[in-house]
Amino acid sequence: LDAAAMAAAQARHATLTKPPGSLGSLEDLGVRLAGLAGTCPPPLPQPATVAVFAGDHGVHAQGVTPWPQEVTVQMVANFLASGAVVNAFARQAGAEVVVVDVGVATPLLDSDPDGLAGGTAGADAGSAGEAVSAQPGMQPRLVRANVRRGTADLSVQPAMTRDEAVAAIEVGIRLAGDLVDGGAGCLITGDMGIGNTTPAAALIAAFTGAAAADVTGRGTGIDDETHGHKVAVVQRALALHRPDPADPVGVLAAVGGLEHAALAGFVLGGAARRVPVILDGVIADSAALAAAALAPDAVGAMVAGHRSAEPGASVALRHLGLAPLVDLGLRLGEGTGAVLAWPIVASAVRVLHDVATFDSAGVAEK
Amino acid sequence: LDAAAMAAAQARHATLTKPPGSLGSLEDLGVRLAGLAGTCPPPLPQPATVAVFAGDHGVHAQGVTPWPQEVTVQMVANFLASGAVVNAFARQAGAEVVVVDVGVATPLLDSDPDGLAGGTAGADAGSAGEAVSAQPGMQPRLVRANVRRGTADLSVQPAMTRDEAVAAIEVGIRLAGDLVDGGAGCLITGDMGIGNTTPAAALIAAFTGAAAADVTGRGTGIDDETHGHKVAVVQRALALHRPDPADPVGVLAAVGGLEHAALAGFVLGGAARRVPVILDGVIADSAALAAAALAPDAVGAMVAGHRSAEPGASVALRHLGLAPLVDLGLRLGEGTGAVLAWPIVASAVRVLHDVATFDSAGVAEK
Repeated sequence: LDAAAMAAAQARHATLTKPPGSLGSLEDLGVRLAGLAGTCPPPLPQPATVAVFAGDHGVHAQGVTPWPQEVTVQMVANFLASGAVVNAFARQAGAEVVVVDVGVATPLLDSDPDGLAGGTAGADAGSAGEAVSAQPGMQPRLVRANVRRGTADLSVQPAMTRDEAVAAIEVGIRLAGDLVDGGAGCLITGDMGIGNTTPAAALIAAFTGAAAADVTGRGTGIDDETHGHKVAVVQRALALHRPDPADPVGVLAAVGGLEHAALAGFVLGGAARRVPVILDGVIADSAALAAAALAPDAVGAMVAGHRSAEPGASVALRHLGLAPLVDLGLRLGEGTGAVLAWPIVASAVRVLHDVATFDSAGVAEK
Repeated sequence: LDAAAMAAAQARHATLTKPPGSLGSLEDLGVRLAGLAGTCPPPLPQPATVAVFAGDHGVHAQGVTPWPQEVTVQMVANFLASGAVVNAFARQAGAEVVVVDVGVATPLLDSDPDGLAGGTAGADAGSAGEAVSAQPGMQPRLVRANVRRGTADLSVQPAMTRDEAVAAIEVGIRLAGDLVDGGAGCLITGDMGIGNTTPAAALIAAFTGAAAADVTGRGTGIDDETHGHKVAVVQRALALHRPDPADPVGVLAAVGGLEHAALAGFVLGGAARRVPVILDGVIADSAALAAAALAPDAVGAMVAGHRSAEPGASVALRHLGLAPLVDLGLRLGEGTGAVLAWPIVASAVRVLHDVATFDSAGVAEK
């Protein structure tokens, strides 16, 4: 973060026609984004693109969720057909939706379902669609970047190899860069993966040292018995792999997911380009811990979009030192909470662009 | 609220491609707005207009704030020149700004400052601009509806007469109706008035029975000594007038403000037209208590935009049974917190319009 730009933003806030400090956390956010951009005012964080990284999970076999695994690929089709909640929220916000197959178990067809044909054509695993650009209001697009058709069961073996974890991270980094090259001023994290709160819990426990029971939630809404079982599965995975937080790639490979790894890369890619990345819920928060472990400075680009109802989300945000903008009990994922937060981020920046000073407006000070 | 429409919205939520309940409070909000509109899905709450009601306060003479009274009229000019924070937030949201002189002490000139000339021409006191329509992106407009040039000092006499309170309420009712006639799908409350957190505290104490010390805040940021003095002024006003919450007009006349009364009418006018009204901070919350006392059903149309840092705001919202959408420590007023909340309200409604069902999207249920 650029100290001079932050000081300039702080000084500018004091001259604007409003009582000092009256915008609460939005003033701090504007100052930080000036520091991120290295200039005051920082650029308006638009257009915005939400990237929904999709993957499947071998740990699904342990019965950690009542939802069938094929819902992941069915929801990918739903995103591409603009039928999911994240599409509705993105339409309201004027944000673009990009769907990334980084680890879906079922091969996506070229022709089916609707929307796939409009996606970035036939990029191979690891190549995150050079042609992607950020034009809000467009149809959702698919990025084909499947690194592996779902992870292995992390409760009995590593979820993936180190090479696969690196490849997934690189998918995220590359997509972030492509989107910024295409004009995106804000990156928004999204995710889809039946069972993906289980690796998120394991990642949060590994990176923060919290107990499995304190970071493992009810995901889509499981009963007490399934929740107890899910906690035990996370505990077993942690005991089996003993993930070392000083080796973030190793942690992701052992107990992560392909979308978690790609999201970590997406955060790093946005931070490298000095573009704000709005974190959605517990999946993004767990990935953000991995990103912060890889590059601590990346935290400066992270904006906590909302506080997921998942307990691990609050643990992760506290560890990162981030306060969420929206706190409405959402636990859907897909990027929904982060998209809701985007207008707030944009408003915090717009103040530094548009608001008159006491001098220029001829308003008396106290 | 229409029970059948609410049941339809609830049932519709259960069929949409998301885990049941995963949108947290947004699901309840969508259901309630269906009940308000009497149809499911309810209309998208757009376009939105924020009405900034401006007034001055005789209690300013008691030294309850360090800001000079002329800042009220200076800020009216700033709103009309699009230089204030509410203008910046409204621009981001695509909302229209209407500025209403319901009680500013200084006469506004016809020609000065910029923007006044574009306002509704020369409407007299009490006539809230029939020509007003809701076209987002337009220049801010002025509604000339001055009922009285500032209130009397409520700590020594009634702030206004009952007739003046009724006239101010009618300004708000009429503007709400005009805006809805002009196409507005959502009304957003805003306010400007140096010293106006003092009458807000008195109103909240009168309607909720809370102690003055528990509802009197630091407004724009006063020191301990001024705060203690402000609490004493509110206590003195309550002891002098003994306002009866069963007589809401009497309460507004005794310890209210002209913008508070107009805002109460604005809420009632929106509720009468079954259009949601997003409450901003403590001024709107105090006015909403008056509206609820006049017509309890009006609460169904109220959406708590944010939780102001003013302590009275939380007391009022609890009394109304409303949970705020945004909670970021804002204490600016003008409508800023409510404008920030508008995209969240719109997103909650859009879900009921746009999201695919499990059946239509071919997504398996658990």
